[in-house]
Amino acid sequence: MTLIKEFVTQEEFIGFYLLKEVEVKLTNSTPPKHYLDIVLSDSSGEISAKLWDASELDRETFVPMGLVKVRGMVQTYRERLQMKIMQMRPVKEEDGIKLTDFVRSAPIRAVDLIHTIRSTIVSITDSEIRSIVSYCVDKVEEKLTHYPAAKTHHHAYFGGLAYHMVRMLELGEFLCQQRSFLNPDLLKAGIILHDIAKPEEMVAQLGIVSEYSTPGKLLGHISMASNWITEAAIRLEIDLDSPKVMGLQHLVLSHHNLGEWGSPVQPQTAEAVALHHIDALDAKLQMVEDALNTTPENEDWTPMIRGLENKAVYRLRV
Amino acid sequence: MTLIKEFVTQEEFIGFYLLKEVEVKLTNSTPPKHYLDIVLSDSSGEISAKLWDASELDRETFVPMGLVKVRGMVQTYRERLQMKIMQMRPVKEEDGIKLTDFVRSAPIRAVDLIHTIRSTIVSITDSEIRSIVSYCVDKVEEKLTHYPAAKTHHHAYFGGLAYHMVRMLELGEFLCQQRSFLNPDLLKAGIILHDIAKPEEMVAQLGIVSEYSTPGKLLGHISMASNWITEAAIRLEIDLDSPKVMGLQHLVLSHHNLGEWGSPVQPQTAEAVALHHIDALDAKLQMVEDALNTTPENEDWTPMIRGLENKAVYRLRV
Amino acid sequence: MTLIKEFVTQEEFIGFYLLKEVEVKLTNSTPPKHYLDIVLSDSSGEISAKLWDASELDRETFVPMGLVKVRGMVQTYRERLQMKIMQMRPVKEEDGIKLTDFVRSAPIRAVDLIHTIRSTIVSITDSEIRSIVSYCVDKVEEKLTHYPAAKTHHHAYFGGLAYHMVRMLELGEFLCQQRSFLNPDLLKAGIILHDIAKPEEMVAQLGIVSEYSTPGKLLGHISMASNWITEAAIRLEIDLDSPKVMGLQHLVLSHHNLGEWGSPVQPQTAEAVALHHIDALDAKLQMVEDALNTTPENEDWTPMIRGLENKAVYRLRV
Amino acid sequence: MTLIKEFVTQEEFIGFYLLKEVEVKLTNSTPPKHYLDIVLSDSSGEISAKLWDASELDRETFVPMGLVKVRGMVQTYRERLQMKIMQMRPVKEEDGIKLTDFVRSAPIRAVDLIHTIRSTIVSITDSEIRSIVSYCVDKVEEKLTHYPAAKTHHHAYFGGLAYHMVRMLELGEFLCQQRSFLNPDLLKAGIILHDIAKPEEMVAQLGIVSEYSTPGKLLGHISMASNWITEAAIRLEIDLDSPKVMGLQHLVLSHHNLGEWGSPVQPQTAEAVALHHIDALDAKLQMVEDALNTTPENEDWTPMIRGLENKAVYRLRV
Amino acid sequence: MTLIKEFVTQEEFIGFYLLKEVEVKLTNSTPPKHYLDIVLSDSSGEISAKLWDASELDRETFVPMGLVKVRGMVQTYRERLQMKIMQMRPVKEEDGIKLTDFVRSAPIRAVDLIHTIRSTIVSITDSEIRSIVSYCVDKVEEKLTHYPAAKTHHHAYFGGLAYHMVRMLELGEFLCQQRSFLNPDLLKAGIILHDIAKPEEMVAQLGIVSEYSTPGKLLGHISMASNWITEAAIRLEIDLDSPKVMGLQHLVLSHHNLGEWGSPVQPQTAEAVALHHIDALDAKLQMVEDALNTTPENEDWTPMIRGLENKAVYRLRV
Amino acid sequence: MTLIKEFVTQEEFIGFYLLKEVEVKLTNSTPPKHYLDIVLSDSSGEISAKLWDASELDRETFVPMGLVKVRGMVQTYRERLQMKIMQMRPVKEEDGIKLTDFVRSAPIRAVDLIHTIRSTIVSITDSEIRSIVSYCVDKVEEKLTHYPAAKTHHHAYFGGLAYHMVRMLELGEFLCQQRSFLNPDLLKAGIILHDIAKPEEMVAQLGIVSEYSTPGKLLGHISMASNWITEAAIRLEIDLDSPKVMGLQHLVLSHHNLGEWGSPVQPQTAEAVALHHIDALDAKLQMVEDALNTTPENEDWTPMIRGLENKAVYRLRV
Repeated sequence: MTLIKEFVTQEEFIGFYLLKEVEVKLTNSTPPKHYLDIVLSDSSGEISAKLWDASELDRETFVPMGLVKVRGMVQTYRERLQMKIMQMRPVKEEDGIKLTDFVRSAPIRAVDLIHTIRSTIVSITDSEIRSIVSYCVDKVEEKLTHYPAAKTHHHAYFGGLAYHMVRMLELGEFLCQQRSFLNPDLLKAGIILHDIAKPEEMVAQLGIVSEYSTPGKLLGHISMASNWITEAAIRLEIDLDSPKVMGLQHLVLSHHNLGEWGSPVQPQTAEAVALHHIDALDAKLQMVEDALNTTPENEDWTPMIRGLENKAVYRLRV
Repeated sequence: MTLIKEFVTQEEFIGFYLLKEVEVKLTNSTPPKHYLDIVLSDSSGEISAKLWDASELDRETFVPMGLVKVRGMVQTYRERLQMKIMQMRPVKEEDGIKLTDFVRSAPIRAVDLIHTIRSTIVSITDSEIRSIVSYCVDKVEEKLTHYPAAKTHHHAYFGGLAYHMVRMLELGEFLCQQRSFLNPDLLKAGIILHDIAKPEEMVAQLGIVSEYSTPGKLLGHISMASNWITEAAIRLEIDLDSPKVMGLQHLVLSHHNLGEWGSPVQPQTAEAVALHHIDALDAKLQMVEDALNTTPENEDWTPMIRGLENKAVYRLRV
Repeated sequence: MTLIKEFVTQEEFIGFYLLKEVEVKLTNSTPPKHYLDIVLSDSSGEISAKLWDASELDRETFVPMGLVKVRGMVQTYRERLQMKIMQMRPVKEEDGIKLTDFVRSAPIRAVDLIHTIRSTIVSITDSEIRSIVSYCVDKVEEKLTHYPAAKTHHHAYFGGLAYHMVRMLELGEFLCQQRSFLNPDLLKAGIILHDIAKPEEMVAQLGIVSEYSTPGKLLGHISMASNWITEAAIRLEIDLDSPKVMGLQHLVLSHHNLGEWGSPVQPQTAEAVALHHIDALDAKLQMVEDALNTTPENEDWTPMIRGLENKAVYRLRV
Repeated sequence: MTLIKEFVTQEEFIGFYLLKEVEVKLTNSTPPKHYLDIVLSDSSGEISAKLWDASELDRETFVPMGLVKVRGMVQTYRERLQMKIMQMRPVKEEDGIKLTDFVRSAPIRAVDLIHTIRSTIVSITDSEIRSIVSYCVDKVEEKLTHYPAAKTHHHAYFGGLAYHMVRMLELGEFLCQQRSFLNPDLLKAGIILHDIAKPEEMVAQLGIVSEYSTPGKLLGHISMASNWITEAAIRLEIDLDSPKVMGLQHLVLSHHNLGEWGSPVQPQTAEAVALHHIDALDAKLQMVEDALNTTPENEDWTPMIRGLENKAVYRLRV
Repeated sequence: MTLIKEFVTQEEFIGFYLLKEVEVKLTNSTPPKHYLDIVLSDSSGEISAKLWDASELDRETFVPMGLVKVRGMVQTYRERLQMKIMQMRPVKEEDGIKLTDFVRSAPIRAVDLIHTIRSTIVSITDSEIRSIVSYCVDKVEEKLTHYPAAKTHHHAYFGGLAYHMVRMLELGEFLCQQRSFLNPDLLKAGIILHDIAKPEEMVAQLGIVSEYSTPGKLLGHISMASNWITEAAIRLEIDLDSPKVMGLQHLVLSHHNLGEWGSPVQPQTAEAVALHHIDALDAKLQMVEDALNTTPENEDWTPMIRGLENKAVYRLRV
Repeated sequence: MTLIKEFVTQEEFIGFYLLKEVEVKLTNSTPPKHYLDIVLSDSSGEISAKLWDASELDRETFVPMGLVKVRGMVQTYRERLQMKIMQMRPVKEEDGIKLTDFVRSAPIRAVDLIHTIRSTIVSITDSEIRSIVSYCVDKVEEKLTHYPAAKTHHHAYFGGLAYHMVRMLELGEFLCQQRSFLNPDLLKAGIILHDIAKPEEMVAQLGIVSEYSTPGKLLGHISMASNWITEAAIRLEIDLDSPKVMGLQHLVLSHHNLGEWGSPVQPQTAEAVALHHIDALDAKLQMVEDALNTTPENEDWTPMIRGLENKAVYRLRV
């Protein structure tokens, strides 16, 4: 069985893959015929594929997020690889295939990521800050085990959001050691809360975001998280006008740094400045790492990366 | 007694004025002497003034927001009028002068403005929307009788915020009649709530903003109002995830239209689009009206107005 | 007969429609065959349609702006509905079908819109302003009965330009009552003249703009209207250097508010500030209204609207 | 007599100069005293100067645009030279001093510049274009002999506008020879007309702009010139809808290239593209030349030049 | 034989053309078939073409940059002409066809352009400047005979880069005569060096750029040329810290004028300001000239030109 | 002796300070008198000060960068503290005062910073990279012991540049451990080289930048460092076209991320992306730390910080 990342043009392959997207389309022949326009994926990447002459049964059988066994021919089309599917059937139980094996996911197990986040919360010394963070994490507990951090921008895979948090927490801990004027409680809280409403902003399955939710579009995850902190404080009977509540809301509200990037206020506390830059550093480096990992080893340039000024990254070999 | 707006260069005037700003400064003579750098104001405008050779008693007596009787000589300095104060004393009770007569204020009495706002709230047919609006207005009830709508931008005077609301409500009512697809409840609520947190964002006295508050800087009035709606819904036991709560928060969050103007989301409901444009139209026309009113009738051009692309307005006489 | 807005996927429909666009294309089969790529429209909306295997007669018969009777199958293609035409013939006289029934148009009859505009002109008290406005309106009298206000942006339908004017006049009248410092003559004139050269800037038929004219591209409707005012003043022997001529030209030149939006000068009179905001408010609310009207009632979100920061509008149900 | 450009700090100078600006100010001593805050200029540059203890006679005698004989001490103040005036009297007839000797002016005599412009008009082969250009030049004939091309930006001196035209005409002639697809008639006309309304946009005396006129602010020189072309065509009975009239108006309207620089349309004819770049090249090089000429020879860097991205120019010596 | 520029829809043509681009694609018929998606070009322009049912031999025979004899039918597709190839064979020796006849190229022969550039270098009076320029030109000597100046922007054809240099040198010479403060040595050197590293920034054949090189992407031609000047100075034993080396590097580094256009510093010497504007003027006018030349004479408007604010150019006929 | 940071208004202080800036100015009394406009500094901050009635001896004695003993009165002027100097004399040898004690400097000794940098260079495993870095560091060896990293932006004090490098190296080491795809040799080299030409770009003494050098303005430190790498490679006989040289130049050229921030190319290698964000994170956090440190402990808000979107930082106390 071949990983998608290893496909080579003009060769035939067989293997198990995930139907990430399936759309029924019509050819413009006369009479027009149905075909399936498919995106196959596995843990190594994804590829466009076509099933020509799709029967009515095919159109009912093959739906998004299903696992399939496929035999197909890979060809180059507009400088990108594409598979022409010759045979395809749904996975059977006896194939012994697990869905999660086919999903791109964070390199650390969800259970371990959640453990780290929960341990970090416990380590917050201020009990009010700790309980507000805990309250908000509880609201998305289940989704946090699998949600991505974004639709396509960065960490766009199973467990991506929790992985992003954990990496940022490591970096935050390093910075608190390097610079003693930073308050570790606030920085930990800011890192955990900054994207905490993303699971309600987006609709995702298996680490793949299909769309933004209506509250996600009308309020945005930044304001939603700010509202959650208000809710937490009321439920936990913490003074709404206390510096803690204001400080946590400021961290969340300002973490995109500029109005045009979605933050209604700019970072104006030490930890808010740190939070924004930790977030940016982690997101950008992950984009680079993911782009290099999903680009075949023998190619020098990755595809263009939107979040990096739409530039490709060069695999410099020194 | 002469209104400031009627001052003429090279003439002497006597009258009662408000000490809007007072700063003790040192001349750079040898030895340096103290003088008071003052901004005098009345209901018609304001003027820079100097009290040279300020004694220690002067420096203690004359403080911001005090009423004084002044005799002084008006001169032109850098193309603007300035008063050299020759005599000044605090107002005595027997002068029969009321502070509010010296404050620039909205052309409608506060009590009437508040009455209109309260009546409008009563006219909201949906009881949940009505009670959320009422809850938020209650939080700033006292300040709403006198707060300005902004530091300098527009409606920057006693009662300016309530006046802005009332004018917008009139315009909103007209539009709901003209275009039946607009929901009057939502539009009324949006108009009343959009700037409702401004009295907590700014520190003001007698219609004059001295500075932004700390929550004002760290959260901003937009996010504060969104949080208040969350608070109102919890206290009033209204479903936090209901379309009403989301719709009201969206109105508030989006009313500045663009991220670079402070809105984390852009208007995406009919009433939100209407609200932004009603707000802009009322604010801009008020800037024009106020600039024309405080510019002497015989001058063709007002000073430059920051909120109007930094342009002056021409008094076109046809 | 079914309105386009009511089409449902996977069903067959029969009805009369307008051929808004017709293009002859070749399939990439071997040998390639001709087909017609069509946009059908009626008063409720429009839909993409294909006539496969188009004969030479078909290609000559079916041309843009013709009315046809069609039987076809509606299908979903790339998340949008599309019709496969099974039978199509031109409308015959005995069908009793009128072209204008198939054209999307303003909700008020052209004759009534023109009547309102003409009455408003009569109500302008200053005879020179009145005659200049009249002169300019006469230049486009016929086109004003049917031209849209824009190619796609807003009021893009039969009579859209006159409808936009009339709505703006209503709003202008309200504002003149609300704020007495506005000069009704100037504001009325500004509203009528601001887009008066659009019928010469664009080439349109039945409310559909096919392209910009050469003078439209080289001069733009703003400068054209300014030149027309000069022309009117000369023909009517009104002093070219009078405040009236300058004031009317300023209204037209500044109504897009900013240089990057096409205005060589920014609004600097009270009426010019009002005009820009009345124009923006009416155009934006109409975009919202039209988008909601042409989106099926059961869909929550309209398509993205370019003129609203490229956002979709949500049909909030409270 | 020493030129201003040759002044040296801590030395005393005597000479004849022009009072470019005079403002009466008050010291902040007690009692305050009058002094004159002056800008002295001659053909080599200008310098700030103070006349302390200005008597009432002084204040009446010394007014802007007067010629004076001055003795004063030059000192450095905030890194710039400044003169303390010790003696000053108005020029007498017997001094034999001519005002124009003290005015910074173009290096070519006005009469010669006008001659070149007039000869160029005569050389335009198309009689309609020629007569429109001639008509517009006639409107500002007198002012063209002395007006500057801008307030401060470039060619801001006596005859600067005509000088700018003449230099551009030379460059235009070179380009028409280099690239035969350019139409010399249109390019000549565009060069002469592009800034032809500047003398009505600005109020200037002796090459010094004091302010913008009201039509200058409300219409701008670009739209004024476009209106003049309309006027010329009507008066000369040339078809308003002819390509010539449209082409000339397009040249004028587009010559600032971008909306944010004041052009309502962008260059879309060959000559309009050429015109914009000829204008930019000539203006920028003149800024450099003037800055180098008015910077003392021994200084390496000129002051910052606003029109050159606010950069100073380095006198590179190779 | 017909030039591409002269093709007419619905007619059959025969002639020799260059295969500028060839891509093997699959139809979406069942089974899919191979076809060749081709861009044919000759000295007059280019056209999209299809060879349906491409055999394996076809796919091996027809590769980019080959010359072919073609018989085909021209049709209109999406408002643009396209050729359906009916017969095609490679050019044979007996056809007597030269590759360079089919390549769009500068209107002056490469040998003459190089001669002009070399003569100009000889005319530089300063021996150090002369030898640095010579060193850098030697590095790309061969490529300079045929490289274009850009991928698509301007002068995108055989010899375009040298042609751009020569035209700029003519303009530079004119300006040095018009304005004596410009140093001809520096301006000549700046013109020759400003794009000298472009042949290493881009990969091109026959005047057609296929892609940017890796150093081109990672360093850019501006920094590469700056490094070359350092290299030249070291090899020629010229002081690295001399004003000449700094001056030449400044010319190269600043010639794009703004940071967002790729220049790390802005022009700050007289010659650097001149260089930027000469470059812009020549590039923009060439875009216009090329667009007019490759647009059929009977069409009024060229296609949109990206480098001209994405505007089309109008062929004004007066 | 009192540190400047501890000054209190209306009190008299005595101590040793550094004359950071001294300017001779004239009062506008009659006759005008000389006074010294001074900035005093010590390791804790700086304060504006005036010495009135400065004698000729005073004006010769007190020059920038001299150490003085001062007795003076502190007052509030325009909301900032200012000292009126009552007595001042130069420091004598017997005072036992060392200049460096009065200079704001990095919290780590220069010798230790240099040691860390040198050790890091030794730890670079690739000998060519190591020797290029070493060559460039040698060029500024002496200046690296005391130069600031910027004029005012960040690390603007004695040893600031080396301190910035060392902190970045720590962060770089952490990231290389966290993300193994980063090449430590390249990242170390990039951190050390990115600002290596700053000591030649700016003119500084005691950690205080007085101005930019001419090469600094005409080339900028980014291009200078790129040229130095070319020079190093030539001198060390390393292939100029090797990936190492290109990679190091890319790191330097791209580290400002965007063209408008001075980088001619954007980061396109993993290490270049990391370098930009490490640089930003360290610079911004240092701005915050320095602002908090130099703001009196009892004040909640620092002054506005230009590099942080011109926002002040709030000392949040939770």
